[in-house]
Amino acid sequence: MQAHNPNLFRGLSAFPITPADTEGRVDTEMLACLMERLCEAKVDSIGLLGSTGIYAYLPVEERKRALEAAVEAVQGRVPIVVGVGALRSDNAVALTKHAQTAGADALLMAPVSYTPLTQDEAFEHYRAVTAASELPLSIYNNPSTTHFAFGADLLERLSRLPTVAAVKMPLPPDNDFAGELARLRDSTGLAIGYSGDWGMAGALLAGADAFYSVLGGMLPRPVMALAHAARNRDAAEAERLDALLQPLWDTFRSYGSLRVMYVLLDMLGLGLAEPPRPILPLSTEAREKIAAAVAPIIGVGEGKETLLA
Amino acid sequence: MQAHNPNLFRGLSAFPITPADTEGRVDTEMLACLMERLCEAKVDSIGLLGSTGIYAYLPVEERKRALEAAVEAVQGRVPIVVGVGALRSDNAVALTKHAQTAGADALLMAPVSYTPLTQDEAFEHYRAVTAASELPLSIYNNPSTTHFAFGADLLERLSRLPTVAAVKMPLPPDNDFAGELARLRDSTGLAIGYSGDWGMAGALLAGADAFYSVLGGMLPRPVMALAHAARNRDAAEAERLDALLQPLWDTFRSYGSLRVMYVLLDMLGLGLAEPPRPILPLSTEAREKIAAAVAPIIGVGEGKETLLA
Repeated sequence: MQAHNPNLFRGLSAFPITPADTEGRVDTEMLACLMERLCEAKVDSIGLLGSTGIYAYLPVEERKRALEAAVEAVQGRVPIVVGVGALRSDNAVALTKHAQTAGADALLMAPVSYTPLTQDEAFEHYRAVTAASELPLSIYNNPSTTHFAFGADLLERLSRLPTVAAVKMPLPPDNDFAGELARLRDSTGLAIGYSGDWGMAGALLAGADAFYSVLGGMLPRPVMALAHAARNRDAAEAERLDALLQPLWDTFRSYGSLRVMYVLLDMLGLGLAEPPRPILPLSTEAREKIAAAVAPIIGVGEGKETLLA
Repeated sequence: MQAHNPNLFRGLSAFPITPADTEGRVDTEMLACLMERLCEAKVDSIGLLGSTGIYAYLPVEERKRALEAAVEAVQGRVPIVVGVGALRSDNAVALTKHAQTAGADALLMAPVSYTPLTQDEAFEHYRAVTAASELPLSIYNNPSTTHFAFGADLLERLSRLPTVAAVKMPLPPDNDFAGELARLRDSTGLAIGYSGDWGMAGALLAGADAFYSVLGGMLPRPVMALAHAARNRDAAEAERLDALLQPLWDTFRSYGSLRVMYVLLDMLGLGLAEPPRPILPLSTEAREKIAAAVAPIIGVGEGKETLLA
């Protein structure tokens, strides 16, 4: 029933940071530069203002400015999926309306909460947001930040809302992608994607429709090379690239991927920005580990893989 | 090192709701009426804009308006402890400065987060806030909403910040109040309070300095009667009142105390307000259970206990 671009929630969705100053004012010039890299690497979609894009930490006005700047920079070359999550339903609805007006291609929304939400409350929250625009929406199931557990019934109910088109799942605990994909496709009919970069090869080799990647937002070329190999069921090449990337993903598990992104921004010479306090910049020791992990990867996907692997 | 009122974090701290319209605009008249009830019942302090006071859901300007209205209504009769938690450290600092200017007596702050915080990040967040005012602060340890776990080392480090004076703990899993109180007093020297209303009698009978009560914000008289009995080590009377209140606290565990408060507001004829969406008003079935549970309690603490028990 989705009249939108059928490739919208397929392939590699890259989640960039949203560089901002210490008061939460977005650096739209640096953001445009990150958008340009993603367009040049031909990612399948841009996940703007996701968890990595610090949507939860930015004032509503800055979220709007960031989206407007991204739309202007991307010029339709790659679809933009924008995060519209908010603690209050009225704020999420307002961001959704703005997203449509500003030219976003799709929505992504997590059930953020303070008071833990019931399944019915989450449903009504999604219902209100989907009623506010025609943009297709991906359900952002991210229990490590939201602490909300979607029941199977709730996902099924949500899948019947007219604009709900996709779901982003956390990695299954037992890595049983095939079983979960079969179950979710059968019960929801949604495009199924995963996040948690170290599970990318496994998810895409198992036939997941999409992968929502943090590293893809900063280093899109090696991540696109991996996603391409895995989607083409070239297990040997996917596993070779996966092995190359694992040391960096180990730093994600140690320090949190968001904190690592700000170090990479600097190391790649793309700019200087800090995460919003209370999140702190990483220590020198952590930076050294990240530098060692990223060294074999820089350049991968630009035709130099074999040299650098 | 605390030059503040030594009774500030002792006894019963009552946490009222903050009535607001569907857009988050605070009804300062209804709030003033709730303040009046708390002053008349002589609660030991008012916990304004706590979790029950939906601080996480209100725009910063409305939080300021609510505090200003409460200070004006209370007129110094009861100390006001105000919640200044925010996802961004700069916002928490701004709310802290406003709290001092507006005439709050003390601060309460939870380490709210989206990206899970490290122990060091939480420390720096508290350090920034305590450096911004002279008001004494209670550490709001509320893992059911924040999902942040304070390590013993962190509580000890925080207790050495000049204005940190108290901590509000969740109920200990094994109900070992005495053991935890001894450990925390020894390691931190802070005034130790608890929340989770069904544990009030146990905590105060075991000698906790304070209890931070949700029901106390709406029905202060029976809660004060229980707190008074327990603090005077009158176990028989404390247990009698505790048994009277348990059916209501059962509804807290079933529906969440915040949702129950909005039903009580209506049942007590104090006004009509709804929790902020996505939190939904409770069903008719839930309201009937709450009505049955509250019937034996209304009037307790007003000299009618024996009649109503």
